[in-house]
Amino acid sequence: MKINVNPAKGMRDFLPLEKEIRDYVENSIKNTYKQTGFELIETPVIENIENLIGSDGGENLKLIFKILKRGEKLEDFSKMSENDLADLGLRYDLTVPLSRFYCNNRAKLPSVFKSLQVGSVFRAERAQKGRYRSLMQCDIDIIGEKSSIAEIELITTTSKALSNLNVDKFSIRINDRRILKSVILSCGFNEQEFDNVCIILDKLDKIGMSGIESELNAKEYNPDNIVKIMNALKNINTAGTMCLTDYGVEKEVVDNINYIINSVQELSEGKYKIRFDFTLVRGMGYYTGSIFEIEYEGLGYSIGGGGRYDKMIGKYIGEEIPAVGFSIGFERLVDQLMEENFKVPNIQKIVLLYDRENNYVDVLKTANNFRSKGYAVSVYEKAKKLGKQLTQFEGFAYSGYAIYDGENTEIKEFKADK
Amino acid sequence: MKINVNPAKGMRDFLPLEKEIRDYVENSIKNTYKQTGFELIETPVIENIENLIGSDGGENLKLIFKILKRGEKLEDFSKMSENDLADLGLRYDLTVPLSRFYCNNRAKLPSVFKSLQVGSVFRAERAQKGRYRSLMQCDIDIIGEKSSIAEIELITTTSKALSNLNVDKFSIRINDRRILKSVILSCGFNEQEFDNVCIILDKLDKIGMSGIESELNAKEYNPDNIVKIMNALKNINTAGTMCLTDYGVEKEVVDNINYIINSVQELSEGKYKIRFDFTLVRGMGYYTGSIFEIEYEGLGYSIGGGGRYDKMIGKYIGEEIPAVGFSIGFERLVDQLMEENFKVPNIQKIVLLYDRENNYVDVLKTANNFRSKGYAVSVYEKAKKLGKQLTQFEGFAYSGYAIYDGENTEIKEFKADK
Repeated sequence: MKINVNPAKGMRDFLPLEKEIRDYVENSIKNTYKQTGFELIETPVIENIENLIGSDGGENLKLIFKILKRGEKLEDFSKMSENDLADLGLRYDLTVPLSRFYCNNRAKLPSVFKSLQVGSVFRAERAQKGRYRSLMQCDIDIIGEKSSIAEIELITTTSKALSNLNVDKFSIRINDRRILKSVILSCGFNEQEFDNVCIILDKLDKIGMSGIESELNAKEYNPDNIVKIMNALKNINTAGTMCLTDYGVEKEVVDNINYIINSVQELSEGKYKIRFDFTLVRGMGYYTGSIFEIEYEGLGYSIGGGGRYDKMIGKYIGEEIPAVGFSIGFERLVDQLMEENFKVPNIQKIVLLYDRENNYVDVLKTANNFRSKGYAVSVYEKAKKLGKQLTQFEGFAYSGYAIYDGENTEIKEFKADK
Repeated sequence: MKINVNPAKGMRDFLPLEKEIRDYVENSIKNTYKQTGFELIETPVIENIENLIGSDGGENLKLIFKILKRGEKLEDFSKMSENDLADLGLRYDLTVPLSRFYCNNRAKLPSVFKSLQVGSVFRAERAQKGRYRSLMQCDIDIIGEKSSIAEIELITTTSKALSNLNVDKFSIRINDRRILKSVILSCGFNEQEFDNVCIILDKLDKIGMSGIESELNAKEYNPDNIVKIMNALKNINTAGTMCLTDYGVEKEVVDNINYIINSVQELSEGKYKIRFDFTLVRGMGYYTGSIFEIEYEGLGYSIGGGGRYDKMIGKYIGEEIPAVGFSIGFERLVDQLMEENFKVPNIQKIVLLYDRENNYVDVLKTANNFRSKGYAVSVYEKAKKLGKQLTQFEGFAYSGYAIYDGENTEIKEFKADK
């Protein structure tokens, strides 16, 4: 019986060279976040299905991998409805599990909890290039802080995580759900139209002003409202946050976003920029206030994003708890670093080659000796074609080799024997 | 709508203190393995269901979490059989995915591949204390090496990973599937009886010789065979591997296990012991040769195990490739370390407390200043009851605190202000 040896659709195998980069990037981000006082926690990959389906995850709710019931619970399944077949599901993000976690454990956590989570999430996306069905996310969240100092800490910390990886071609876009709401409603659109208008505005980068206008017309919205929103777009594009109160945005909301922008800009030490962008929307239904994204120079999509979700935790415990989070899109970041030929710094990895006639215990003792000096040492049998073997290990990013020769074993660079 | 805030059955939330230990242990093990030349790879959590069901996973096959088909594939499910409802499943170990990975990628790997995998596996166990439905495993495997130098490297390296965590109360038990087979068959049992006889022998630790004898009698095996196997047990218990050839075990197999034991013992530098144990069985059907476990002093179960599975990879590609692996049972190891009050070494974590009237940007600058000196710094608002707040952070394993005071901010130990 031969079996399909490919990973399941949308899943990936990671070979050593790529995994080494992934591992380095993960640890670097985690270390920055830990050093900034975020507390690493872990939530399970599997959640009760009601918990996932009951969340405001927007489009992601359609992409949940559901886990089949087992044993007795599945008896007579032919009489069940589709929704009764599954009792569990795989998480599609880290925010929904975090909210449940916080409610389950809040008595044991500080009143303002700064959470760090790194883990895989799963989405049954249509398989296509750059779209994965299993993806890593690195999230920091601050729960229990209603003022915008939480946003400032999240944005500066996430930026620092990128800087510590020598990623510098990024900037931050920021907006607020309440600004979107006020402006769109003040142009005459109603609550039911709000989400769809947002989806169209979100495309400005791709389709331009005229594209926006035709899409709005195609939806047959009131022409007066379309004229108003197009004017608002131009106005806000020129005047920035200054003119927002003209569109019914509360002064407090404007002051708030300006305070975030100014504080982050000051703390950035000129290393990155943050700017207000009225057409930033973000898909998740659970956002209630500020929303932000990391824009990477030349890339058509963001490499991270987040926002405030003050209502989500309240759904679990009937008590409103403010919360805001920022997630680095690990896969997109790593894809980009790989694209730029990122190298993991400071690896001292050598291969120790031996012959079958050598005493294997002595070979391992020699390897241990080099290891105690700080080298990572792989032990392999010497091939007949030594040159070819050395080229192979050089390709695997080894930095040198040694051929076992008892006490005279010494480390050489790859060039030496070729 | 209030939602159940507990994790799904058998799943766990990890709070910061426990997660810190988990993270430290994981990194320590990974670093030891990398330093010993094993290559970190990653395989997906989700595999095609045929791949899991078609494996020789013994009891684990009954515990697979299956993922419901989606969209069109699930139309008319009421006419399907239960097996048709799922197209994917969650891996129950790391060995099956590794075998598929190797077959999928072997052209890009060295001819002898030393693999390191750390990841979660999932088993729908009946929920009970110490039994988890999601568990981490740390596996090293050597693929493509048929001689027992692979076993020697795996056993010494796994032992080193434990030593590097200051775990020293362990020893290694080793046996060989071929020894079990020869001895049991030589006593008159047949191939069909072999598995069940193994399951009974495996219980020696718990039920003793008389228990073994009654269980064998209860199964109504041929009484002559029972007498023979009981004698063999006593004999082997006294004479060790010396008498195995009397029971039809090939000399090569005996030499092989002796070579492993002697080499490991020499390389252990007296830090741990390895011993032949004829009653070590291990459940997985896929083992073909040596099998081994890590025994932890005073614990009734092993904290890791492995063995040789020379036939598994051949099932995928129709070409036999020798393979052997060793898995550390991460959950059991961490549970045990927690039991022993394990402390993560060298954490310099402080909390910086500020008032709302302080300039928050300046507070963050002060925090960054301490961070650049190597401290992990959390920024929190000072509570009215400072003493209580400090006690709380001390409980969270912080090593000190500072109260923001512009340029005069200084780090203090917890005792100072209480």
